[in-house]
Amino acid sequence: MPGTHEGLEGIKATSTRLSLVDGTAGRLILAGYDVEAIAPRAKFEEMAHLLWYGRLPMGHELETLKRDLASRRRLPKPTSTLLRDAAKASTPIIDAVRMAVATLSLGRIEAPEEDTRTLLAAFPTIVGEYWHLINAEEPVEPRADLSHAEYCLYQIFGCLPEEIDPERTRGLETYLNTVCDHGLNASTFAARVIVSTHSDLVSAVTGAVGALKGPLHGGAPGPALDMVGEISTADRAEQVILAKLERGERLMGFGHRVYRTRDPRADVLAAAAEKFYATSGDKDFYALARQVEKTALRLLSKHKPGRHLDTNVEFYTALLLNGLGFPKELFTPIFAIARVLGWTAHCLEQLRNGRLIRPDAEYIGPVDLTFSSVPTASPLN
Amino acid sequence: MPGTHEGLEGIKATSTRLSLVDGTAGRLILAGYDVEAIAPRAKFEEMAHLLWYGRLPMGHELETLKRDLASRRRLPKPTSTLLRDAAKASTPIIDAVRMAVATLSLGRIEAPEEDTRTLLAAFPTIVGEYWHLINAEEPVEPRADLSHAEYCLYQIFGCLPEEIDPERTRGLETYLNTVCDHGLNASTFAARVIVSTHSDLVSAVTGAVGALKGPLHGGAPGPALDMVGEISTADRAEQVILAKLERGERLMGFGHRVYRTRDPRADVLAAAAEKFYATSGDKDFYALARQVEKTALRLLSKHKPGRHLDTNVEFYTALLLNGLGFPKELFTPIFAIARVLGWTAHCLEQLRNGRLIRPDAEYIGPVDLTFSSVPTASPLN
Repeated sequence: MPGTHEGLEGIKATSTRLSLVDGTAGRLILAGYDVEAIAPRAKFEEMAHLLWYGRLPMGHELETLKRDLASRRRLPKPTSTLLRDAAKASTPIIDAVRMAVATLSLGRIEAPEEDTRTLLAAFPTIVGEYWHLINAEEPVEPRADLSHAEYCLYQIFGCLPEEIDPERTRGLETYLNTVCDHGLNASTFAARVIVSTHSDLVSAVTGAVGALKGPLHGGAPGPALDMVGEISTADRAEQVILAKLERGERLMGFGHRVYRTRDPRADVLAAAAEKFYATSGDKDFYALARQVEKTALRLLSKHKPGRHLDTNVEFYTALLLNGLGFPKELFTPIFAIARVLGWTAHCLEQLRNGRLIRPDAEYIGPVDLTFSSVPTASPLN
Repeated sequence: MPGTHEGLEGIKATSTRLSLVDGTAGRLILAGYDVEAIAPRAKFEEMAHLLWYGRLPMGHELETLKRDLASRRRLPKPTSTLLRDAAKASTPIIDAVRMAVATLSLGRIEAPEEDTRTLLAAFPTIVGEYWHLINAEEPVEPRADLSHAEYCLYQIFGCLPEEIDPERTRGLETYLNTVCDHGLNASTFAARVIVSTHSDLVSAVTGAVGALKGPLHGGAPGPALDMVGEISTADRAEQVILAKLERGERLMGFGHRVYRTRDPRADVLAAAAEKFYATSGDKDFYALARQVEKTALRLLSKHKPGRHLDTNVEFYTALLLNGLGFPKELFTPIFAIARVLGWTAHCLEQLRNGRLIRPDAEYIGPVDLTFSSVPTASPLN
């Protein structure tokens, strides 16, 4: 019998047509398309059609899907009530999102193909409503005349349709596409385990949000931005970074567990950030961040030679989302707005082809203990 | 590189000190004790101490734990509000339980050891409150002067303390102990995957309830009872069962995926049922069920020789829970009341020793597709 595979590293738990994470080649394929080929150009609704149904929409399919998603943005009333209660109790955003998502099956028949759409459509409303509530504002009314990415900007910033800058929409859409799926990360795997029992997608996605919250999950770009803020002026970059390296600290925003060469998502988001900041956003911040990056890479190659610690996806995510106007507290919720696409697509795939996911465990505890109620000495001593 | 391990069958995903499911020997060990040695005698709070802290309570520890659990029974107000809304929307019980569990972190600091206790203590209140609401009754007030098993009977049936029959409490307690943990079943594994990111226990247990709901999960004893009801009088047993076997139907209540010889839990619950029905419950129903069982076993050994299809845990669970007065709709929620102990214990273990659970996937989709927005023909054709 084989040994224990702690963390299941290197164990192929399933086959998938959704994404290929090739860490050695530095390649990410999303349902057939290299991330750099599709993410900067596709509408998020096109990505959704691709991941859910295995191909891009044709003819009227895109318009039909957009309209259908737009019609599912309003939350059940008890969900909005719960968000108000959560705000009163100062619940952290990602927990409130998880609680709200859990209630999306209220009063509905659950068919997997319906749930995928309702979940995807509801995420921006959940995040937006909660963001307004914790900022002591009234949530904005859902509206159906915007694309998914435009609707995110409307929900969170309250931008009127005519105020939505196309470059800003494109920047957000590129981000959403880039991170919408990434193999069997822990949250996606949690969703597949749950739905492998033939449970429903709301249950599975609720579990996935719970996993996403964990600090080991990855995809949380907050800390990468902290260093830029800490450095604050370009002339301090060398000194601050050097001190971190000499204290043995990890530089947030550099290196990735899977990608040994380059993370292709980092390139896509770097280009998106460059494009966005060329016409909009805080140019001084952008210049500072790029200076910090240059200095960090130079010092890393000196201090950790041969490690190939490239700038990672978190760094450029932070740069791009910050430029688009998102506060740091919303980085993980926005990530969830993107990743719910991957979660739901994996659920559909699991329901089509998957088996119940039920591994074994290696028992390393005692055996043959003798029970007596409330003993006066521990049976293990 | 190895092939794909669909369902992870036979893959040891972690080591554990919590339970050993030995299907070949027909043995289930719970933290050192054979299930038949501990389940019929221990208090559920003793089991909780054993699984959470690795040993039985000593001295005052049992009393202290009982009191602490009893003090955590009241739900946050928004949780009760949500249960009311869920009842109005005719939400199925297990979904309502999942939604309510998701909100248990409202307004609380989450420490894993606190969450284990709050979760365990709150489950009977959630199930009880919801059961009353969907039966158009007012929920009963939580009270702290009862043991966990007594409190379940009080919450669901509204029994006053003086009305609680000790045999009934013992029967329920034996059931809760028997099914409180069972290796890496799908719901327990889902909880471990979620908490492996260092997320919180409320998130993990919410995911586990979502997995438990799935019809492939197992542990749902409803259908085993259906056959007894369908047969309705002993003289019809042979005819009904024979017809089922000849139609190639599976007999619910017999056989188990893991236990090739006997399921030790079945023996424990059979004995508990026998003991309970000796003094209480519907004796005619019990006699009928045993007659159905005898007939089924005889016919199975003739129709499926060499398959060793013993009466399984679901059959005796149905028999016992039915005797204790639980309607079939509550079988899965009562199972959850027991299994939350295993879920939380596995979470504590995962947090202590575990690594991030992140398997690989085998990509079997296309590569190198060329993107063009809204194509007129599918790129996959």
